Amino acid sequence: MEKRREAIYPVEEWTVTERMFDRRTNYRNETTFALSNGYIGTRGTFEEAYEFDVDTGLEGDFVNGFYESEKIRYGEANFGSPLYSQSLLNLPNLKETGLYVEGEKFDMERGEVSEYARVLHMKEGFLERRLVWVSPGGKMVRIRTKRLVSFDRKHIMATRFEVTPLNFSGKIRFVSKLQGDVENHTRKTNPIVDYGPFGRKLEAEKLRREGSRLYYEGTTQTSGLTVGCGSSHSVVLEDVSSEECIATGSSRGSVRGEGSDCGCDTAVCGRRRICGGENDSQFGIADSRQMAVREDGFGGPFDAADGSRRCVYGEGSDSRCTVSGEVGELAASCVIEMEAAKQETIVLEKMICYVTSLDRGKEELEEFVTRKLSEAEQMGYEELERRQEEYLGRFWETADIRIAGEESSALVQGLRFNLFHIFQAAGRDGKTGMGAKGLSGEGYEGHYFWDTEMYVLPVFLYTEPETAKKLLDYRYATLDQARDRARVLGHEKGALFPWRTINGEEASTYYPLGTAQYHINADIAYALSLYLQVTGDRAYLTEKGVELLAETARIWADVGSFAECKGGRYCICCVTGPDEYNVLTDNNFYTNLMAREHLRDAARAVRWLKEKEPAAYEKWKEKLDFQEEELTLWEEIAEKMYLPYEEKRGIYPLDDGFMMRKPWDESRIPAEKRAWLYENYHPLFIMRHRMSKQADAVLGLYLHSDLFSKEEIQRNYDFYQEVTLHHSSLSTCIFGIVACSIGRVEEAYDYFMQSARMDLDDHHNNFYAGIHAANMAGTWQTVVSGFGGMRCQGGRLSFEPGIPEKWEEYSFRVRYRGSVLEVTVTKEKAVFSLAEGEKVRIWVYGEEVEVEGKCEIRMERL
Amino acid sequence: MEKRREAIYPVEEWTVTERMFDRRTNYRNETTFALSNGYIGTRGTFEEAYEFDVDTGLEGDFVNGFYESEKIRYGEANFGSPLYSQSLLNLPNLKETGLYVEGEKFDMERGEVSEYARVLHMKEGFLERRLVWVSPGGKMVRIRTKRLVSFDRKHIMATRFEVTPLNFSGKIRFVSKLQGDVENHTRKTNPIVDYGPFGRKLEAEKLRREGSRLYYEGTTQTSGLTVGCGSSHSVVLEDVSSEECIATGSSRGSVRGEGSDCGCDTAVCGRRRICGGENDSQFGIADSRQMAVREDGFGGPFDAADGSRRCVYGEGSDSRCTVSGEVGELAASCVIEMEAAKQETIVLEKMICYVTSLDRGKEELEEFVTRKLSEAEQMGYEELERRQEEYLGRFWETADIRIAGEESSALVQGLRFNLFHIFQAAGRDGKTGMGAKGLSGEGYEGHYFWDTEMYVLPVFLYTEPETAKKLLDYRYATLDQARDRARVLGHEKGALFPWRTINGEEASTYYPLGTAQYHINADIAYALSLYLQVTGDRAYLTEKGVELLAETARIWADVGSFAECKGGRYCICCVTGPDEYNVLTDNNFYTNLMAREHLRDAARAVRWLKEKEPAAYEKWKEKLDFQEEELTLWEEIAEKMYLPYEEKRGIYPLDDGFMMRKPWDESRIPAEKRAWLYENYHPLFIMRHRMSKQADAVLGLYLHSDLFSKEEIQRNYDFYQEVTLHHSSLSTCIFGIVACSIGRVEEAYDYFMQSARMDLDDHHNNFYAGIHAANMAGTWQTVVSGFGGMRCQGGRLSFEPGIPEKWEEYSFRVRYRGSVLEVTVTKEKAVFSLAEGEKVRIWVYGEEVEVEGKCEIRMERL
Repeated sequence: MEKRREAIYPVEEWTVTERMFDRRTNYRNETTFALSNGYIGTRGTFEEAYEFDVDTGLEGDFVNGFYESEKIRYGEANFGSPLYSQSLLNLPNLKETGLYVEGEKFDMERGEVSEYARVLHMKEGFLERRLVWVSPGGKMVRIRTKRLVSFDRKHIMATRFEVTPLNFSGKIRFVSKLQGDVENHTRKTNPIVDYGPFGRKLEAEKLRREGSRLYYEGTTQTSGLTVGCGSSHSVVLEDVSSEECIATGSSRGSVRGEGSDCGCDTAVCGRRRICGGENDSQFGIADSRQMAVREDGFGGPFDAADGSRRCVYGEGSDSRCTVSGEVGELAASCVIEMEAAKQETIVLEKMICYVTSLDRGKEELEEFVTRKLSEAEQMGYEELERRQEEYLGRFWETADIRIAGEESSALVQGLRFNLFHIFQAAGRDGKTGMGAKGLSGEGYEGHYFWDTEMYVLPVFLYTEPETAKKLLDYRYATLDQARDRARVLGHEKGALFPWRTINGEEASTYYPLGTAQYHINADIAYALSLYLQVTGDRAYLTEKGVELLAETARIWADVGSFAECKGGRYCICCVTGPDEYNVLTDNNFYTNLMAREHLRDAARAVRWLKEKEPAAYEKWKEKLDFQEEELTLWEEIAEKMYLPYEEKRGIYPLDDGFMMRKPWDESRIPAEKRAWLYENYHPLFIMRHRMSKQADAVLGLYLHSDLFSKEEIQRNYDFYQEVTLHHSSLSTCIFGIVACSIGRVEEAYDYFMQSARMDLDDHHNNFYAGIHAANMAGTWQTVVSGFGGMRCQGGRLSFEPGIPEKWEEYSFRVRYRGSVLEVTVTKEKAVFSLAEGEKVRIWVYGEEVEVEGKCEIRMERL
Repeated sequence: MEKRREAIYPVEEWTVTERMFDRRTNYRNETTFALSNGYIGTRGTFEEAYEFDVDTGLEGDFVNGFYESEKIRYGEANFGSPLYSQSLLNLPNLKETGLYVEGEKFDMERGEVSEYARVLHMKEGFLERRLVWVSPGGKMVRIRTKRLVSFDRKHIMATRFEVTPLNFSGKIRFVSKLQGDVENHTRKTNPIVDYGPFGRKLEAEKLRREGSRLYYEGTTQTSGLTVGCGSSHSVVLEDVSSEECIATGSSRGSVRGEGSDCGCDTAVCGRRRICGGENDSQFGIADSRQMAVREDGFGGPFDAADGSRRCVYGEGSDSRCTVSGEVGELAASCVIEMEAAKQETIVLEKMICYVTSLDRGKEELEEFVTRKLSEAEQMGYEELERRQEEYLGRFWETADIRIAGEESSALVQGLRFNLFHIFQAAGRDGKTGMGAKGLSGEGYEGHYFWDTEMYVLPVFLYTEPETAKKLLDYRYATLDQARDRARVLGHEKGALFPWRTINGEEASTYYPLGTAQYHINADIAYALSLYLQVTGDRAYLTEKGVELLAETARIWADVGSFAECKGGRYCICCVTGPDEYNVLTDNNFYTNLMAREHLRDAARAVRWLKEKEPAAYEKWKEKLDFQEEELTLWEEIAEKMYLPYEEKRGIYPLDDGFMMRKPWDESRIPAEKRAWLYENYHPLFIMRHRMSKQADAVLGLYLHSDLFSKEEIQRNYDFYQEVTLHHSSLSTCIFGIVACSIGRVEEAYDYFMQSARMDLDDHHNNFYAGIHAANMAGTWQTVVSGFGGMRCQGGRLSFEPGIPEKWEEYSFRVRYRGSVLEVTVTKEKAVFSLAEGEKVRIWVYGEEVEVEGKCEIRMERL
């Protein structure tokens, strides 16, 4: 992998801007401009809905947790292999809005486009497109579209489409569609997957237009989940006196009221006429935000000559703004047409709502959508955007990282891009987790992995702990499935979490790289323990924590054994660690270490419950059929856990067999195959070589750095630098953090550079399939836990700040036990100040410090 | 597994007899009575072709090497996984012959059956059925059918159908069919396989009747192989003066001339009238063995009212015997009808021929079948049977084992059954190998495994060495595919044989239990080395041996490395040994040992060639791009090969991780699941436990017993007895052999009892899917190499005879360097005598002995 790449987009502070539309980069850009609120996810496709083939684009609209299953076929099936898949399903598209200017269809590939910009506003949380288009027939229009997926309203996506005729007065027609004929790009985005979904998987059960409202309801063929979705439309007519004012929207930054360059608020300046509402002067409808509803008739469905069932609504109303539409078998449309005067800006606001049977009874879906759409209409696009900015503002206030120094603008842009996307990705309802690709694409079939707990959750934990809790809630909610899975794996007690899943059941079809990754249990337990330490949320421990820790710990007590040949140490065989090039290993260092600490945490938690909440303990004990001897066994296992150790170099080999593997000779691998080993080499070839795909032992040494000496960490870091290929996006950020901890700040900086803009510059050439959420979160960790040296271990929040040569200063904030701590680091000093809440006790370079106001520490050279 | 089971069939010397037809045991009995010559295989189904469902029977007709492919689907595909399957394809059935007695269809499930017997004549090599049937309408007939698959004529199967009206004179009608509408029982016989073949896979290209000849030609949908097959019919009318004479066939032993109980030769007694042939007195046809050809007309195919293409031939000839028939889309029939007098025996002889495009050009197939059928007709069934007995006789003369003592009849029957079936199973044309199930059923999709080389080939080597050579030829013939496979596995040089195959390409779809079994290379090399030692065939070494040894050895030089952490010893990681419960292991003892000896043999062979045949060596060196440094490397690897060793017990663990595995607690496994672990437990559960499915290290200690002390072997044997579950049919025979070698003759006897009648008594309850050829051959090895203590190692043929308590005497013969040695062992002495050829030098209990005539050695207690 190249260390650095040329920036794809201009380096900007809070925005990512595309200056030219190009089919060849479109698929990737759809991910760049994807929006989500952790529930609805929508790719950054264009309103006019180009016909992209599978290599150039994917219209994608997803709801977290909503999947389709297919029967999985195996050459040779193993007992316990998942029988049905889970794939995040591509849902009906409601964004599509065709624009016709005097009958000419707006199409950026026809006519002429100028002043084009597509801008992701990360601070405010919306996507914007601006351009001037001259149609083949010579009609010139200014167009601006905006889109947001509301954090304030979980089920709502809102769009705004502004059109201003610049050199004519004439007919403007919007054709807003509900396109139910959608399918996943499985072959493209998950090429190794051979079970689909292929083709359309939703069976439409309702599809209607009522006035300017469209509604669809459909159920998946196999998983039996139902989605209800709809849109509603309002037309807002604005004519603005001066062209300069309209120009506000084009290139001069924020287009909304406050601080706009031209000094006016575009949204309110000019004469504003709302199309719709009974008492509206022009349209005679009451509510000033109601949609235009002038239509000639409402015909029931009939059989058209071509055999399809269609509803055709009358056109040709005598009002200025008419609404008509069509309802077909799989798609429906709402057509809004009006006369626009030259220089008059016409605005179509479209509210979109998705809800599924995972949230509501199937019979409630339509009413729910109707209600949510009405509420959103009442509010209007601008109010939703205001709330969006407010919501994002709270996040950025804690999460944003400031850096001053060489290259800092590019780094900060990368960091913000990363934080924005992971902020978008996490489920916040306790019923859904976070896909490794968020809701930005179909990669990894939308599955949740350990990425959530080990990479992303810590970021939320220190910035928006409520979301971290919700992610843990999701795991707790699927504990029963994990119990069932443990039985399938032959464990009589306990719970084993799936390696990849949406609904809580195992979805990995290749167990050496899937189910064998038992460390998932310890990862979840680690995240939970971290949550408890950082928040001090004891209620959570009592309510869910002890159960989650204990049920997952039980697996460790069953999977291994005290081996006589290892002096009675506890050995865990035939599991796969994080490293995907070394599978089915014996005594994977990471796994054994994490299992040991998991057992310790679980034992402590159970003993705590027993002491502090005896009544709860008794109830819990009965529920889990828990024997006190289990506790003793856990403690004995933890005491005697075997960790592979190589005397000569003083290092922890990846596993028992690692040092015997054949030395890796990269020179024999053709350059074009180097980063794609599984695509080009047989698994046996890969696994017989001494090399590692990604941080594995090194990750363990980071997470439990308090249990190892710096020298030890350094020796291991040196060793693993030699053998790690960083073919996973989960690797460099961890190496960067560990490099910092042993004073290798400049090496850390190199790793950081590789990870900070990994997705923004598409280092892996697969950003089209979705974000790499783990690495995105890992970059935040590299700054805070790497350069900042922050750890929360043994109940202590500690820092060992360092600073790269090229930086003059950087600062970040972390939430800790209800307070917010701001940390600013320069070459000379680290300043800790309390931004919110009560005083915080921290340890800096091993010294205890109480931060009440502000407190400066001289920088040490590690 | 139970150690012994009640005998299913009566204990008999040279026969296996079924006394009652029962649908419930039919599927199994079809395997028991299956016939093959290593080219054609046919299951022991009935001529009248009952409609069995997939649980009660499978009409199966196979040609060795003839397979169909299907695209294999994988949940998640790995690089190098086979993309197309190979399944031994079920071919058109030509055995079917319906019998109508005065219009009533013969059916053992209607009317009354008496004097029923179905007999496998193992000495003579044919299958017989005898019975008396009273039709629902009261017609009584005696029926005898015979069937053989000719060893003398590779492409020919012959059947004989005798009918004698006992209480009437009347019409007898045979409806002989060619049934092309056949399919495999994949779901039943290979339930874990999800790629088929499902449904009919042959596309019929020719289907015709010409006179009493039927011909079919069809090509597979995917593999593109063509089969041509046909049948011809002759009617022989025999009336026999006395009923006693006919009764000969019913229960009084041999029905053929020599030694028949009634003193007459049924085949010649009575008035014999051949139906067919121009000059025949009654039918006016010349050749006394020609078929009846009186038919009224020969119509071309026409479209019948039901849309099918049919040919209907006229009936109602004025001769005594008429032939007519039908030709449909997938099936054709030949109907032969005549009047039979009471007590007159009517005989239908049917010759069947199969040939495929693997043997002949597609355009030659029909002519070939016609010619072969004519030749077979000329010969007649009786002559074919005579030659069959002669052929078998030669085999039995060397292969048969005689035992005197308690239980010996049952054992001998089991042994003969085993030998008979493996004798039937082996391909003898150098283009085909031997399926693990021979050609007796569809189990394992007809694939060839290591079973051939390690279990079956030694039996042929010592009894019919030409067949052993042909099996090696098959491997040599697929060396190019093995070279290609090695590249797929990342080896730049050398050849890696597939774990399972028909056409020479890898067909295993689950690499941990398939491709990872690299030991296949050493197994083939071992068999080759053994062949060279036992036969002394140096021409073979020059011509093919060196190349085969060297190309396969190269893999060992690339797959492992000298590991610093193991003191510079050569380690082989991530391969699977013979034991299928311990996969992807590091330093599997068996693999490393076999690889070491393979490298030594290969180096010796190359050095031999260089010295003895310098010209051939130079040519060979160039062909293989062989560097002399490779030789040095091989020798260094052999020198430094690492073998796992456990100091405390002084044993060789199965692999590096074995001693750390979790102890196995069988009490936690429900009895009904114990023998079916992969069907009931996840692979991870199985592999994390310290237990072994089958002989693994112990097999290595047997094959290279000269390299280990008796004490060492004993310690390992004891250890592996504790941890081996014998869930594979390849296990007990090996333990039996090793038990003998350390003087545990009674334990060996126990193991022997489990393996000797394993299939005859259906210990594994899956005999329906085909024979267990490896175990069948293993029982021969248990007597000869176990009790007889025979080894051929380091160029020496040695014996260390022992004898079980229950036996008084046993004897066997072995071919060795052109001579035949007979060994007879009693409690007191072992007698070695030369049955054929020149004097033989052997070692008995370590002492050199030259056997010229006869030589007696006093028995030692080991």
